[in-house]
Amino acid sequence: MEITSTSKAFGGAQHFCVHESAQVKTPMTFSVFVPPQAASEKVPALLWLSGLTCTAENFTVKAGAQRKAAELGLALIAPDTSPRGDGVPDDPDGAYDFGLGAGFYVNATASPFDAHYRMRAYVEEELLGVVADAFPIDVARLGLSGHSMGGHGALTIGLRNPGRFRIISAFSPIVSPINCPWGRKALQGYLGDDAAAWRAYDACALLEDGCRAPELLVEQGLADPFLEEQLRPELLVKAARDASVPLTLNYREGYDHSYYFIASFIDAHLAWHRERL
Amino acid sequence: MEITSTSKAFGGAQHFCVHESAQVKTPMTFSVFVPPQAASEKVPALLWLSGLTCTAENFTVKAGAQRKAAELGLALIAPDTSPRGDGVPDDPDGAYDFGLGAGFYVNATASPFDAHYRMRAYVEEELLGVVADAFPIDVARLGLSGHSMGGHGALTIGLRNPGRFRIISAFSPIVSPINCPWGRKALQGYLGDDAAAWRAYDACALLEDGCRAPELLVEQGLADPFLEEQLRPELLVKAARDASVPLTLNYREGYDHSYYFIASFIDAHLAWHRERL
Repeated sequence: MEITSTSKAFGGAQHFCVHESAQVKTPMTFSVFVPPQAASEKVPALLWLSGLTCTAENFTVKAGAQRKAAELGLALIAPDTSPRGDGVPDDPDGAYDFGLGAGFYVNATASPFDAHYRMRAYVEEELLGVVADAFPIDVARLGLSGHSMGGHGALTIGLRNPGRFRIISAFSPIVSPINCPWGRKALQGYLGDDAAAWRAYDACALLEDGCRAPELLVEQGLADPFLEEQLRPELLVKAARDASVPLTLNYREGYDHSYYFIASFIDAHLAWHRERL
Repeated sequence: MEITSTSKAFGGAQHFCVHESAQVKTPMTFSVFVPPQAASEKVPALLWLSGLTCTAENFTVKAGAQRKAAELGLALIAPDTSPRGDGVPDDPDGAYDFGLGAGFYVNATASPFDAHYRMRAYVEEELLGVVADAFPIDVARLGLSGHSMGGHGALTIGLRNPGRFRIISAFSPIVSPINCPWGRKALQGYLGDDAAAWRAYDACALLEDGCRAPELLVEQGLADPFLEEQLRPELLVKAARDASVPLTLNYREGYDHSYYFIASFIDAHLAWHRERL
């Protein structure tokens, strides 16, 4: 792993890093914010999964999360959203919602995507080890959050791995890819036509199938243009209720799908995670 | 003037706008953050001038300033850094430090740049009127700040216009373009070889020539790679002392020239401006 840039921020350090990923078989970029408290002790961390079209940069430069993270003594880890580089297949039409920048946090099984699109395995099995080898992060105290496609990633990876991630939140998540156009396109493209295989990548289906979390926190803007067709938080409300998982869903009047929305409420999520780590 | 996008942020509204500029004779883009307090009264504003290569977006998405501005009831205005578009001449070699994205807040007198490169007149005579016509901003309560080339812009425009801008601060400013490579290239290119004309665009020379401000606040990272050759804050220390202008210069150990540095200290600058507006 190589640290490609470091800037001091809020008394801590904002790093960008690149490494050769064994899981996705390309170089992968991620950012790590190390708070000042890490100078004397290992710190808990929040892993942030980003949405469609994002790289490791979007959350890092736009969310304004470092200020509160520095205050709380919380590290922030933000990986890229797909493999990148020569030989990585993309959407045949170059669409923004599949392929590069749109890995959907799955392990692809359909050719030609199965060779590289293994973002589930990358997040669950590789990334945190690479980060913890280089930075003073306590991997027993990890929270998970994300936005949109990354909110889907946070919910599904978190629900499948309660021993690895203590607590999960999400902003504007795709709560049920099986039941929205973005999700159906991605799951069919990466996994093929057998819809039974898709359920492992659907937060609502995972809850129906027995996965559990101690509680869930979801932030959703009511002026989000993707709310009704793609995000459908009401499906998560029902699935969480049926599974007896406490869900706090904050609807925010007037807020859209952008990082201005995330920035407006990220401090509360960071504090919520920190209390539970 | 047209509002091209609006996102709710921290209870206020982050707008991007475009208008046909009479001064630079191209469409110009700027951002305005309107804090929630503006719903009931006109609010003071901070005008932010950005640095080399920046557009209206950089400060708006990277500085994380809206949170504190919403708390303080302070609007934020961030214009582009040069004219743009067909027919606007650029650096002959496409360099980042002259031409597009590098207007240096001058009124160019040298051909072919004099037709469009009038960023001084744009900021001093046009922008604020356009903003105040559309948003509830009290133009009698304006502060001015900026970064690097924009710190130079804030210092020079502020020193020349004490009646228009009550108070000036800067991050990592080019304090004396006459005395650094970035500045000499820009001033020669935009103004020609007569160095006497350059003094109107040099904060230290303006102080020597009698311009005054009630006080100045400057933030400077000590790990800034441009510190010694381009920024040279020691020249401002001497000029301010000779002019009996109180200068607070905060050297920050370990901080570089990036927006991570700005984000780390923007809250303190916003509060400092707000107290004086």
